[in-house]
Amino acid sequence: MKKIISQATIDRLPLYFRTLQLVEEEDMQIISSDELGRRLDITPEQIRKDLATFGQFGRKGIGYDVHELKNKIGNILGLHNNWRLAIVGVGHLGSALANYVNFASLGFSVVALLDKNKKIIGSEVNGIEISDSERMKEIIEEKSVDIGVITVPASEAQGVAEQLVAAGVKGIWNFAPTRISVPPTIPLVNEDLSIGLSALSYHMSQD
Amino acid sequence: MKKIISQATIDRLPLYFRTLQLVEEEDMQIISSDELGRRLDITPEQIRKDLATFGQFGRKGIGYDVHELKNKIGNILGLHNNWRLAIVGVGHLGSALANYVNFASLGFSVVALLDKNKKIIGSEVNGIEISDSERMKEIIEEKSVDIGVITVPASEAQGVAEQLVAAGVKGIWNFAPTRISVPPTIPLVNEDLSIGLSALSYHMSQD
Repeated sequence: MKKIISQATIDRLPLYFRTLQLVEEEDMQIISSDELGRRLDITPEQIRKDLATFGQFGRKGIGYDVHELKNKIGNILGLHNNWRLAIVGVGHLGSALANYVNFASLGFSVVALLDKNKKIIGSEVNGIEISDSERMKEIIEEKSVDIGVITVPASEAQGVAEQLVAAGVKGIWNFAPTRISVPPTIPLVNEDLSIGLSALSYHMSQD
Repeated sequence: MKKIISQATIDRLPLYFRTLQLVEEEDMQIISSDELGRRLDITPEQIRKDLATFGQFGRKGIGYDVHELKNKIGNILGLHNNWRLAIVGVGHLGSALANYVNFASLGFSVVALLDKNKKIIGSEVNGIEISDSERMKEIIEEKSVDIGVITVPASEAQGVAEQLVAAGVKGIWNFAPTRISVPPTIPLVNEDLSIGLSALSYHMSQD
């Protein structure tokens, strides 16, 4: 039986996960929803409601078992799969993502970089060699890539998405500023960097 | 009187806004919640609920006036302020943001780039000169910067945030993978690029 979990809750789970990682490194074994809320600037009520979606974790008046809760959230998010990423388009954004430390802390690893620009093919970013995107299918099979990350210009995004699907990726993360379509069996997340900026604009306009 | 609008609704408003921009360019004057939903992959019920938060827009059985709805959402988001951004830290991520086309389409403009690396000070990204971050206060006043964007390493983020606040920015958008603290009067949005990736992992784990 699958429970429907709201997108907003799913979006908060990685925050809980990473905070619990830090808390665990501090050797804390139990954490209250108040303390978790203080660290994340989320109300304790919201935290208790989110976590209750997945079953009974906490003990009233005591708190949550840090290790147990961290593992449970990691499992819900599927982080134990240690997903392997290929980034297509190694411009500034692709290079930034190849260097982004938070991915590793959540168990994701970038295993391949692809570009069509002959001038950068063969060079490395963060120790990963850039391969010719014409060899996409071969590289994706060889490196057991699960997720294709699209950081090419908007005009090339749909074509790259289709090549990634044909090459066998299981999910697509699109940064190109355009909507792309993929078969319904392939989960797709469109990342739009201006969403956060618009939220900031909204809060700056409330005084 | 201020209405409390959920973060999830605020996060969808820029999507509505940009879709309405495109629809307007196609010379459509009226759009139904069904059509808006189809373009955005959001249910028509969710759209009607989100928009009802801000008052009566649509007419039953007809749809929404595209121009009116776009302007209303833009006003709610504060986009008419034409916020001016300074990016601090011109590495790969800072450069990617300086080139990001979606900002301009929402009325944001990047007016200053700051870095402490003498080797890149004086060079340009997307036509904007990189200035010495030691001159932050002067540049921010001179260029009437509203929003400071932090793309420096985690260890430098808190210091940069404090300098930005002291220099007079009205809001902060933090990409450094660490929590920073600023005075409660300064809106802060922490951007975490792995949130979307975790959501993708969640959806890929549901079969």
